[in-house]
Amino acid sequence: MALVVQKYGGSSVGDADKIKRVADRIARRVRGGDQVVAVVSAMGDTTDDLIELAGKISARPSTREMDVLMHTGEIVSASLMAMALGELGMDAISLTGQQAGIRTDSVYRRARIAGIDTARMERELEAGRIVIVAGFQGVTEELDITTFGRGGSDTTAVALAAALGSSRCEIYTDVAGVYSADPRIVPSARPLRDIGYGEMLEMATTGAVVMHPRAVEVGAIYGVEILVASTFDESAPGTIIHGETTMEQANKVRGIAHQRQVAKITVRAVPDRPGIAAHLFEPLAQANISVDTIVQNASVEGLTDLTFTVAKDDMTSAVEVVRATLPALGATELVTDAEVGTVSVVGTGMASAPGYAAQMFRTLFDKGVNIQLISTSDIRITCVVASAQVDDAVRALHEAFALDQE
Amino acid sequence: MALVVQKYGGSSVGDADKIKRVADRIARRVRGGDQVVAVVSAMGDTTDDLIELAGKISARPSTREMDVLMHTGEIVSASLMAMALGELGMDAISLTGQQAGIRTDSVYRRARIAGIDTARMERELEAGRIVIVAGFQGVTEELDITTFGRGGSDTTAVALAAALGSSRCEIYTDVAGVYSADPRIVPSARPLRDIGYGEMLEMATTGAVVMHPRAVEVGAIYGVEILVASTFDESAPGTIIHGETTMEQANKVRGIAHQRQVAKITVRAVPDRPGIAAHLFEPLAQANISVDTIVQNASVEGLTDLTFTVAKDDMTSAVEVVRATLPALGATELVTDAEVGTVSVVGTGMASAPGYAAQMFRTLFDKGVNIQLISTSDIRITCVVASAQVDDAVRALHEAFALDQE
Repeated sequence: MALVVQKYGGSSVGDADKIKRVADRIARRVRGGDQVVAVVSAMGDTTDDLIELAGKISARPSTREMDVLMHTGEIVSASLMAMALGELGMDAISLTGQQAGIRTDSVYRRARIAGIDTARMERELEAGRIVIVAGFQGVTEELDITTFGRGGSDTTAVALAAALGSSRCEIYTDVAGVYSADPRIVPSARPLRDIGYGEMLEMATTGAVVMHPRAVEVGAIYGVEILVASTFDESAPGTIIHGETTMEQANKVRGIAHQRQVAKITVRAVPDRPGIAAHLFEPLAQANISVDTIVQNASVEGLTDLTFTVAKDDMTSAVEVVRATLPALGATELVTDAEVGTVSVVGTGMASAPGYAAQMFRTLFDKGVNIQLISTSDIRITCVVASAQVDDAVRALHEAFALDQE
Repeated sequence: MALVVQKYGGSSVGDADKIKRVADRIARRVRGGDQVVAVVSAMGDTTDDLIELAGKISARPSTREMDVLMHTGEIVSASLMAMALGELGMDAISLTGQQAGIRTDSVYRRARIAGIDTARMERELEAGRIVIVAGFQGVTEELDITTFGRGGSDTTAVALAAALGSSRCEIYTDVAGVYSADPRIVPSARPLRDIGYGEMLEMATTGAVVMHPRAVEVGAIYGVEILVASTFDESAPGTIIHGETTMEQANKVRGIAHQRQVAKITVRAVPDRPGIAAHLFEPLAQANISVDTIVQNASVEGLTDLTFTVAKDDMTSAVEVVRATLPALGATELVTDAEVGTVSVVGTGMASAPGYAAQMFRTLFDKGVNIQLISTSDIRITCVVASAQVDDAVRALHEAFALDQE
């Protein structure tokens, strides 16, 4: 008898019929002899509907109250799933994040898990119950409600698996796994059998979003293997995210990731003194704006250009912050471009094999895609390109690296 | 500076605009110098929508899970109300039933409050905050979520007033107060200035439903005066429910109550032995079926008829229970009538003034309304009549007792 922690996303529990189908799937697993803890997201568009409702009342609602509002969606799904299992003759109980023992810090909207007290869950499992946990939420020490941000139910599931001592977590979603590229752009993209935590993080944070990056981080830290698979197509094997990269997979491009909603900000002609990067990026960090690619040109006549990218949604506030630092930097000119995107080639060990970068640049050049910025990590090479060229770039790279073949 | 506990019902917070209007009302009160704790119900049809959703999943959902599901509606309202107050520049915080310290027994769907730990509320009030509490809910010792049944937010409000040491609770709703009769039946019905707890209980449990009977009970036990008034018509004074009946009001009919959804069950020719009533009504109580009027005819040749009424919704289960007891009672015949209703004349001291009963019976006789059963209490005379004649009976009695006059 193994303990399995599963997670079902919003599209998997989008209506009453889908909830019943998921319940049936869980019931079969339990009848097969496993103990199941299932984490559920809010039904379909619930979260968006709640955000819209809040928007009618306040342009800038308190983050604490937004968390109180939003966490109800997952509770609704959890109770309905427990009812659906009851209807199948199974003994199931729903738990809120608090009841599941999930304690967090007090950063509303993007709280981090501080610890999990598994006592209640273990009691319910010992009593032979299926435990359904409302995802994406926890409580602070003061018992105030917090949420983990979009996709946070993935994090709930992986963290529960770690806390309950389970070495595996199953994330069920509406896609068949982690693809070699977005299949909406590249029809020949295929689901990967497996992928390393680090590679998955690069895929997730550079656009091939199927799961919450923090869930992958938690999996990596606690050694929880994560299966990403389809909720309703049980014949598809899915993708396993794990810590080991086999010999054959090292030094190999695993996938092409991309991002469309990116904005580029350039501060021109900054006097090149030590500390200018700190002067620029500390205020951005304080304003909680995440900066992605950063490039500083070589200095010409003591002046340099500093370019970085942010999420398109953050551009307005980023420009405000940067404009305020211009006097301190001794610069005056700010150039923005909201029409850019990124394409990334992801694979372990790419940094030690320079041929990949060369092949990437050659492929983009042949396609007439102009590279605006380049950044690299151990397992990723990213190019910033015009957003209109993102799709072409992804398709060309997927073909160039032969990713449609096993 | 006085502490005021208010409650706003589902129709008062039915959409974003109404929530803003209520927030404005609360903000004015606070600017006027009062501290406010406001209890809110779920928005409009939320509760019905959630029940419908559960119905699609399970015909007999677990009561525990129904409470988990339903309690989310009030939390949504509470967080939105706190946001709306924030938008008006007020410092407000929403609290769930649990956060407000409301502990209950573990009878799901109709839990009773076991105690209220006011520490968190007091801390927030001392910090100058408006406290918005999600109504109709609490938690058990095990931190499982419970609800109080339909209208339970009234009970939350009155119990919070008692726990916080406030001598007054304000219930805002979509009617102008407690009327002398249902104004949809009697256009000349008028809101009462005040009414006693006991009278209000009779009005509420016999059909003139504007508030939860348990809220009135809690008010009576803890001496909390309850104002029932209109949310949006601030010029209407509303009705005060309190403990003292003035000299002039004693021995006076206060209102006409009615019930439409009633079923009558008669067990015929029961051998008249001691204990037959217990044999009949204990199993009904165990099945959680509430019995209203009970009449036992005088025995004829050692046989008697036992007649009682139940809510129409309970008739099928009541008949099942009673049929199972027939052999033990030595009876064989069961007669049911699902087409009955009740009309009641309510007023303190009526039992000691028999003229009221005579006038009631005469009025109904003059209108051609046949009285099927009669039951009385200190402050009420109730007649069971054909449901088709309920409206006529209410109108005739309202006129006969001159209730359209101050």
